[in-house]
Amino acid sequence: MSNPTAAPNRTTEPPELPLEREFSAKSYTYENERGWRQYRMLRPCRGMYHDVRRRMPYYWSDITDAFTYRTIASTIRMYFVKSANPLPTHISSSSTHHLEDHSCMLIPQRSLLPAVAYTLDMYRRTGEFFGVTEALFSSALAAMVFSILGVQPLTIVGITGLISLFNYTIYDIISLYDVSLYPSFMAWTGIWAAIFHWAVAVFNLCDYMRYVTDFSSESFGMYVGIIYMIKGVEELVYEFDQNGPTAGYLSCIIAILYFASIYSLEWLGQSTVWQHWFRGILADYAYVFATLFWVGFSHIPGRLKDANISKVPIMEAFHPTQPRGWLLEFWTLPVTWVFVALPFGFLLMLLFYYDHNVSSITAQARQFPLRKPGGFHWDFFLLGCTTFVAGILGLPMPNGLVPQAPVHTDSLTQYTTEVKIISTAEGEGTEIRRPIVKATAVVEQRVSHFLMGLALIGTMTGPLLTVLHTMPSALFAGVFFVIGWGSIESNSMVHRLVFLMSESRFVQRDEPLLRVRRRAIWLFIGLQAAGVAATVAISQTMAAIGFPVLIILLIPLRTHAMPRWFTLAELEVLDDFTCTNKQVLASLGGAPALPEHSKETDWGLERRRSEQRFGLHRQRAGSLKR
Amino acid sequence: MSNPTAAPNRTTEPPELPLEREFSAKSYTYENERGWRQYRMLRPCRGMYHDVRRRMPYYWSDITDAFTYRTIASTIRMYFVKSANPLPTHISSSSTHHLEDHSCMLIPQRSLLPAVAYTLDMYRRTGEFFGVTEALFSSALAAMVFSILGVQPLTIVGITGLISLFNYTIYDIISLYDVSLYPSFMAWTGIWAAIFHWAVAVFNLCDYMRYVTDFSSESFGMYVGIIYMIKGVEELVYEFDQNGPTAGYLSCIIAILYFASIYSLEWLGQSTVWQHWFRGILADYAYVFATLFWVGFSHIPGRLKDANISKVPIMEAFHPTQPRGWLLEFWTLPVTWVFVALPFGFLLMLLFYYDHNVSSITAQARQFPLRKPGGFHWDFFLLGCTTFVAGILGLPMPNGLVPQAPVHTDSLTQYTTEVKIISTAEGEGTEIRRPIVKATAVVEQRVSHFLMGLALIGTMTGPLLTVLHTMPSALFAGVFFVIGWGSIESNSMVHRLVFLMSESRFVQRDEPLLRVRRRAIWLFIGLQAAGVAATVAISQTMAAIGFPVLIILLIPLRTHAMPRWFTLAELEVLDDFTCTNKQVLASLGGAPALPEHSKETDWGLERRRSEQRFGLHRQRAGSLKR
Repeated sequence: MSNPTAAPNRTTEPPELPLEREFSAKSYTYENERGWRQYRMLRPCRGMYHDVRRRMPYYWSDITDAFTYRTIASTIRMYFVKSANPLPTHISSSSTHHLEDHSCMLIPQRSLLPAVAYTLDMYRRTGEFFGVTEALFSSALAAMVFSILGVQPLTIVGITGLISLFNYTIYDIISLYDVSLYPSFMAWTGIWAAIFHWAVAVFNLCDYMRYVTDFSSESFGMYVGIIYMIKGVEELVYEFDQNGPTAGYLSCIIAILYFASIYSLEWLGQSTVWQHWFRGILADYAYVFATLFWVGFSHIPGRLKDANISKVPIMEAFHPTQPRGWLLEFWTLPVTWVFVALPFGFLLMLLFYYDHNVSSITAQARQFPLRKPGGFHWDFFLLGCTTFVAGILGLPMPNGLVPQAPVHTDSLTQYTTEVKIISTAEGEGTEIRRPIVKATAVVEQRVSHFLMGLALIGTMTGPLLTVLHTMPSALFAGVFFVIGWGSIESNSMVHRLVFLMSESRFVQRDEPLLRVRRRAIWLFIGLQAAGVAATVAISQTMAAIGFPVLIILLIPLRTHAMPRWFTLAELEVLDDFTCTNKQVLASLGGAPALPEHSKETDWGLERRRSEQRFGLHRQRAGSLKR
Repeated sequence: MSNPTAAPNRTTEPPELPLEREFSAKSYTYENERGWRQYRMLRPCRGMYHDVRRRMPYYWSDITDAFTYRTIASTIRMYFVKSANPLPTHISSSSTHHLEDHSCMLIPQRSLLPAVAYTLDMYRRTGEFFGVTEALFSSALAAMVFSILGVQPLTIVGITGLISLFNYTIYDIISLYDVSLYPSFMAWTGIWAAIFHWAVAVFNLCDYMRYVTDFSSESFGMYVGIIYMIKGVEELVYEFDQNGPTAGYLSCIIAILYFASIYSLEWLGQSTVWQHWFRGILADYAYVFATLFWVGFSHIPGRLKDANISKVPIMEAFHPTQPRGWLLEFWTLPVTWVFVALPFGFLLMLLFYYDHNVSSITAQARQFPLRKPGGFHWDFFLLGCTTFVAGILGLPMPNGLVPQAPVHTDSLTQYTTEVKIISTAEGEGTEIRRPIVKATAVVEQRVSHFLMGLALIGTMTGPLLTVLHTMPSALFAGVFFVIGWGSIESNSMVHRLVFLMSESRFVQRDEPLLRVRRRAIWLFIGLQAAGVAATVAISQTMAAIGFPVLIILLIPLRTHAMPRWFTLAELEVLDDFTCTNKQVLASLGGAPALPEHSKETDWGLERRRSEQRFGLHRQRAGSLKR
């Protein structure tokens, strides 16, 4: 059906294929409808139906297209490294030097390292209820369901740091009353959340994701970065408390040097040293190399081994961490508590509504030359199902992985590096050469997602769990630092702060930010910073479960209040819709129309300039300065 | 006399002043002489006489010119930070991206931090004979003598890591026989070395320094960088042995983070963020800020203080570290041993011949718009005197500080940062802006050198020694890493290796290295690497005192063997005379003439291209990539 070897032109829409025509970009919309038909709430299941009909014709090709090396490389990379590459980039739709289409936070991950990393935290803070086994099981379940039944198999699903925060905050609250209620209370939270998910999917409410702009998604990215840095420090503090100062200091060293190793490898991967393919290996497998090295290092006999730093705790394979059956006895929860769980379920749905849909949007970001359609309503319905199952089995609930999902697409994309020669006015031989990365095609298939699920199930078996047990916990503090710092460093808030503080004479004259009043830039990042600060602050308290509300409140702030404080031209430079891919908007009921919206092409000036100047920026932990 | 506020044109020789005329660049030469007069050995003291006559007229202005802010800033910076800025740069006369005129190693330092850093090492490895007091006294003595009597007061003099290596290697040798002989043996080594120094100065042998090229001076820089890295690791290993694993690991953390702090601060100082003056402060005082912070950190009560890491050991002020009088009883040494000391004295002279003169050359490198003349013969005579005094008082012998001396000049230089606008062929608004650093003037005076000496004497008094005692030894491991890594990173060997491994399509077409056969570049850096490897290897054995011989052997290798293996055009790109400043050559008997030498302006192509493209590169620890 779709031919992945063809090089679609990124700037124009890919040519429509015969089967696609019937349910094309224009078929799901409410714009030209009249009477009751224009109200999406009144037409239940319309979005889900269109999602499935639109994607169905591609199902067979999703399997046959997978027989390429890319799929294998992608599976290995996603299984193992997940966290590394993702982070740094899928960020800066509006940054000065990067150019992703859709900004977006970067964080939570699934797949080996990350899944384990925040699971450690969740394990300790939920009275050891959620362990590594649960996390792997949950990830594997989600991978199976979404790879086989999902409309958009590129959106990979797993456990995030935010669900960890959510789960242990509930634990803190419940333990004020009766900690034995926690398992069945979590089950009911999952059941309620599932019901809300289904309602959102049925009543086509995912359409509102169109209105998400970089204003809120970049703030979310910054928030997540800060949370990760905090988690890394907490991990190290825990090591001191647990094993004393020697183990604690050694853990700090391992975490710092692990961070430095990955950072350096990825920096080398972005340079122009060695051949393209070798750099690709360095960057793709930075996590693998660094992990192997530092795990080995921590086991060198003598002083290092004697420091006795703590390792990943594991439980018997295929069994819950706690001595319990898989199915939680949720029917034993007192009725009062069943209803107490309702608002928690709603908040969980709110979190997933934002987190999952944004991850799906970034997996289909504009820089990827995608040819197959996605579907938000159907996938959100499926997410309700996995939430339900995870709830009653006592697993952490999986959802779309914000920094991961775009990395998955990235790992399936064929890139070429070209030389851009800029001739200067100074005469011959003085031209400037720059590497420009271009994406030629994406291997769109559902096999890699499926294989990752299989690999995770494999990890749950005994021998591999033993391998996992050799890894020092300090490594995961390092993972947190890489993820957190990558997210902070590449955030557009940082880039704009750097712009504001730079000596203006060194700023290139075609920098779009120069068209914006400096005061307006300060106000824009100030509003973002206020949002981030409030969310981080709330995360440290018992009110942490309310943080999805704060993030979602940024959306109406942007659409309703901010047009009064900024001119349209300024907002066009500073902000952009997070979702701009036409294939994606097809499932969301068409392009959004904000009050200040003029014509679509005026948005994202900064991103387009950067893309033209530097080419695509792959998802790596890069340096602030390009 | 000379007017420091005028901005001399860097590319042309400064206009000669009236008094200068008589003893100008051409007055000391042997080129047009006939008969016995053309042999420099037969005309004793001629060089010294010319040196003094040439400089004498400027003596008064050396004091009056000093009344500027630059002098104060320079004194503080040189007293405190010495090591930071120096290192990374004064290197890359031939590197792709830097542009110092005179390459040159970077290392040893004097002034607070560095002097203390290698003193720790020397203290432990000479049976605690040479302590901090001796090091400070020696540095202060040298500063007094050279600031008042020296011809070129910009060449600052102090204790280097190499004299430390020299001293403890002799200790190792002597302790095979009778360790009690060590003090008087060192005294005789100093006496013999002093005699050889005077001979060299009297017979005008410093003239041969003209033939030093980047081939050997860059190798020396790499050697020193590696030695420093090794020293840093040794310092940390010592901490483990001394205070156990907890203190050891904490020391590693402090060393790593101290390194990272200085590296980051200097990276920021090189960026275009904030205003010029603020960046200048960041980079100038990177060592001060980082030292204050990490000393404070190591004293935070609780776990950090409890780790009990070791601090700088100090002795009673104004008293030798050992219970002895200041004057060593060198007359008690058996006569046999007096003559055993002779070859050691010769080797010491050889080391200083290379090390001191290269430091003097770099302090007067071409990128500094100097107007006052220097003098090698007289200063080497003075160095003999300080060696004599240090020898009989049992102090480590001071000499010119290779990475330090150019930093001193740099700290006295007034720089301006200009914008270079490169218009591209792509139309209006697409020009590229680059910061270009230019040197406008140097405050040439002898007051800063003098004040540094006073400050060092001040440090020997009780209260300040107590302050010194609060500094953890781990900080000095960090200093070693900063110095060592800076020296390695900015070395032209590394830059050329990167060039050789880079994908050639991304290399700018006007890169001079493209004119050289790749095989020739490999051979050139291969020869350098062999020299470095041999010298590093010998440094780890008792034969370490022979290392000056190896370094000096690189000079005839370059002048006699290498022209057979390389074409003239290739050598012109790859190599350059380390000494090219006309003011400097005036004291060395005029420009050198190698067999393959054609006309002077063809040399240093790489440097000149880089200078034109990026401007001057100040002496900072920078990143590999600009």
